Amino acid sequence: MQTYSAPVRDMQFVLNEVLRVEERFAELPGFDEVSADLVDGVLEQAGRLFEEVVHPTNMPGHEEGCERRADGTVRLPDGFCEAYRAVRDAGWLGVSASPEYGGQGLPETLNFFIDEMFTSANMSLSLLPGLTHGACTAIEAHATEELRAKYLPNMVSGRWSGTMCLTESHAGTDLGMIRTRAVPRADGSYAITGTKIFITCGEHDATENIVHLVLAKLPDAPPGVKGISLLLVPKYLVGADGEPGERNAATCVSIETKMGIEGAPTCVMSFEDATGWLVGEPHRGLACMFTMMNHERLAVGIQGLGIAEKAYQSAVAYARERLQGRSLSGPKRPDLPADPILVHPDVRRMLQTARAWNEGARAFAGWVGLEIDRSARHPDPKVRRKAAGRVAFLTPVVKALLSDLGYENATRCQQVFGGAGYIAETGMEQLVRDARIAQIYEGTNGVQANDLVGRKLFGNGGETLRELAADLRAFIEEREGDEALAEFLGPFAAALERLQVVTGWLLERAAENREELGAAAVDYLRFTGLVCLAYLWAAMAEAALERAPSDNSGFYRAKLATARYFMGRLLPETAALDAAIRSGADTLMALEADAY
Amino acid sequence: MQTYSAPVRDMQFVLNEVLRVEERFAELPGFDEVSADLVDGVLEQAGRLFEEVVHPTNMPGHEEGCERRADGTVRLPDGFCEAYRAVRDAGWLGVSASPEYGGQGLPETLNFFIDEMFTSANMSLSLLPGLTHGACTAIEAHATEELRAKYLPNMVSGRWSGTMCLTESHAGTDLGMIRTRAVPRADGSYAITGTKIFITCGEHDATENIVHLVLAKLPDAPPGVKGISLLLVPKYLVGADGEPGERNAATCVSIETKMGIEGAPTCVMSFEDATGWLVGEPHRGLACMFTMMNHERLAVGIQGLGIAEKAYQSAVAYARERLQGRSLSGPKRPDLPADPILVHPDVRRMLQTARAWNEGARAFAGWVGLEIDRSARHPDPKVRRKAAGRVAFLTPVVKALLSDLGYENATRCQQVFGGAGYIAETGMEQLVRDARIAQIYEGTNGVQANDLVGRKLFGNGGETLRELAADLRAFIEEREGDEALAEFLGPFAAALERLQVVTGWLLERAAENREELGAAAVDYLRFTGLVCLAYLWAAMAEAALERAPSDNSGFYRAKLATARYFMGRLLPETAALDAAIRSGADTLMALEADAY
Repeated sequence: MQTYSAPVRDMQFVLNEVLRVEERFAELPGFDEVSADLVDGVLEQAGRLFEEVVHPTNMPGHEEGCERRADGTVRLPDGFCEAYRAVRDAGWLGVSASPEYGGQGLPETLNFFIDEMFTSANMSLSLLPGLTHGACTAIEAHATEELRAKYLPNMVSGRWSGTMCLTESHAGTDLGMIRTRAVPRADGSYAITGTKIFITCGEHDATENIVHLVLAKLPDAPPGVKGISLLLVPKYLVGADGEPGERNAATCVSIETKMGIEGAPTCVMSFEDATGWLVGEPHRGLACMFTMMNHERLAVGIQGLGIAEKAYQSAVAYARERLQGRSLSGPKRPDLPADPILVHPDVRRMLQTARAWNEGARAFAGWVGLEIDRSARHPDPKVRRKAAGRVAFLTPVVKALLSDLGYENATRCQQVFGGAGYIAETGMEQLVRDARIAQIYEGTNGVQANDLVGRKLFGNGGETLRELAADLRAFIEEREGDEALAEFLGPFAAALERLQVVTGWLLERAAENREELGAAAVDYLRFTGLVCLAYLWAAMAEAALERAPSDNSGFYRAKLATARYFMGRLLPETAALDAAIRSGADTLMALEADAY
Repeated sequence: MQTYSAPVRDMQFVLNEVLRVEERFAELPGFDEVSADLVDGVLEQAGRLFEEVVHPTNMPGHEEGCERRADGTVRLPDGFCEAYRAVRDAGWLGVSASPEYGGQGLPETLNFFIDEMFTSANMSLSLLPGLTHGACTAIEAHATEELRAKYLPNMVSGRWSGTMCLTESHAGTDLGMIRTRAVPRADGSYAITGTKIFITCGEHDATENIVHLVLAKLPDAPPGVKGISLLLVPKYLVGADGEPGERNAATCVSIETKMGIEGAPTCVMSFEDATGWLVGEPHRGLACMFTMMNHERLAVGIQGLGIAEKAYQSAVAYARERLQGRSLSGPKRPDLPADPILVHPDVRRMLQTARAWNEGARAFAGWVGLEIDRSARHPDPKVRRKAAGRVAFLTPVVKALLSDLGYENATRCQQVFGGAGYIAETGMEQLVRDARIAQIYEGTNGVQANDLVGRKLFGNGGETLRELAADLRAFIEEREGDEALAEFLGPFAAALERLQVVTGWLLERAAENREELGAAAVDYLRFTGLVCLAYLWAAMAEAALERAPSDNSGFYRAKLATARYFMGRLLPETAALDAAIRSGADTLMALEADAY
């Protein structure tokens, strides 16, 4: 069975003890009152709600799925609407949203951890407010004051939800080819016509209105991605009283049968002369949509972590309970017919691997969350700019690495269950199937990797990476001579050095042949991600070493053991990645197209 | 959509050009007339049937699933019974079975390739004859002449099917704990009582009888695995006329809801004073079952290859068709709105990776198949013994490595489809879900790895590995100075050397602490498998180099490009595995049990 207890202690460790957010928030106007105590309180209260109210809806939702009725409405699984309302009423949907529109105005850093808990508890349901949050971000950044005032308060509160309508059947990654049209009307609105696919929560019965952000082309649009505009198209037009009124011509014509996230309807949406309003400048819709996409990409990485955490906890519970075989070093529970499988080294390997990835990923999320808050709020524009550059660089890494780890760890933890893991009733197959989508949507992980090496690395001559590497190098140098920390700093420093060398090699080759970038992309992203995790594990080890002497719970000893495991057993993957990158584009592009 | 064309050309290459089976079969009495032409004919004919008749049933079967009716009978999906009969009537079920019982008496090597095609075409359906084949092997090796005569002809022909009934809800890997009882009756039969779970094809409507091989304990059984006996329990008792008569008390009480292989019913089987007969000696059932298990384990490895091959072909077809974006080196199809995604380096990376693994895996299967035939037929008992030892050593490697690659490649090829891969209608999610079970059943891949390092490596002091390494080393030395081959031999030799060194390290450490074996097991198995694939890629490169000058089709050029890709991009994983093994048991066992 799926087991979940919100990892509040570990989140507190990351935020308060490793990142010391209280000190960092103190530098950020508006966040200066976000104390460690407040952080603790938020995590504890949210954790309880997700454990007790949301988590129990997850497995039944997978089994039941969504239903599209003949009238085009879509019914979420039993209990989803109630769970959604409970989270909304407790105030957890607008944690980081602007107080101007009813949000709590808390740091994005904190919101990331709420996202993690929501995904663990019920990933399908979490997508509904997740997309709303992204839509709010785009509306707040780009829409007119009138649209903001009309839509944001109800979206921030969770009374209404939001969607992203990008993909058409022939245009996914290549949005320049979309055919949906938006024709201006005399009253300043637009008539939108077209069909969009893969619209998560495009229709459902949990909120009173649904606000679609739709990519479309205006009549005078230049060809390609430079001719895309963003339009806001509500399911119900909003009347003068601010309430949903007339039904708009935006309808769900079918929902997809798919691998997982069964509780989240994936809709085909048809717009037939639907009424909408322009968000941002004409033809600049892609840039507006990227405000939303960047937020979503980070959120999707966190989804990977959320699933992996639940998979880990479930596998630990099973490994303690399931009796099979005896320990190689002699029976550990001679009173029982067999030992719990937790005694077997290979079972421990699977659990410890998942744990080391997850705890590293959580710290990674916290680190990037803090950079987002700094990029938005720091009084010094140079600090803001640098933080923004780092967030842009790390966004594809978080999205792809954490979602890959989500799937790998869900699979790994399913394996702990043996045959029972393949059976629906343990819930492990759901976690694997749910985790899989995070590697695909919001830009496949290959697209993330191409974004990293193409735009974020090569595009600025490696500058952002150099800056990041310099900061990591400074972290290491400041701690030189720390004997207790040396066992962690050594492997981290070596991996960082290796990354810098291979980056130089890649940039040089790419100057001659751009295809080297695509050939290296996925392996380079993972390498970068592993180096980030090594940094965070070194930082976590440092925090744990400080506190280990007075450690009564074993928390810090376990942290150090896991740090050692990461450095010794997982980080060496960088050697293979290094070689794979250096094998280059030639062996890859050698086959003629018809030889496949 | 799933695409499948039997890879007959590649199979012919492996069998006739790399392994030169005609020459090798000539040494084996009974196989001396198995010519290259015969091999070609078998593969071509079987390939056509699997493509045309079996493959079309696969996706509908996944959608429809199996149904257990109130009377305990189970209905396979539409078209399965017809497809099964078509394969049976064409004679493809008894290819390697003994002519004494109606088999064709062809080499097991050939049968492996038929297994691959059957899995590609419809994995769920292939399990039915696959298990029958395993059951026949155990019956032929261990049952009395009377039982053999009574059951084997109808099982070999496919009129009846077979199952393996091992697992009970509390006893999976640890079979010593089973509770099913077999009580002798005066007439020499036994009364079997107990409940077995996870019984693939325990009940279905494709054959006239089902022969269960059941593990149970006799009243005087010693405790643990030394007290397990094997019993043959037919669904219908066989009358004096040799036909199914009275219904036996072996019934399917439910079927599982599970992740995949939806077309293969996974049954809970209840035996209530069911009538059965002992196979082999009392209390020696586990050894008898292992005859079957070893066959099944190899077959499960081949399943991984079968799924991966179909996933690869489907992804290639999609990558040629799907238009999205432009090549980094300039538009390749300016006549179209976008280039086919096959132009993108990262798409090629996914395809080329799947291809390199698959072609290597196919050669691996052929190599091990040939060793099985040599172990059974070679006139020199020393050769037989050595071949048998090698098969025993490589069986867990084939099972675990090829099933892991099956899942990895199905996932990788699903990724090529982007969002469409997550939707049921492309069939890619089915391949991932089907592939997953092969890593779990017939002993999880962790159990395989423990078998490899515990019994097959440490158990004989590393002797079998030394012998294997010596033969591979000899292969390399015989080719020293071959300049064209050097680029392939170099990486292979280095990986082999590294494997031998880490093996020495491991055996030494394990002598002090047995838990080192379990800690290293999974990584050690993969390392061994990679070295085997490197050997086979070197051998394939040699065969391709010989023929490349007169290559009109591009087949050999593609083979060489893929060999280069394997050596440069995939084999370096061994560096990471080496480091993971050397990280040892200490970092793994450091956490106290309650720290998880």
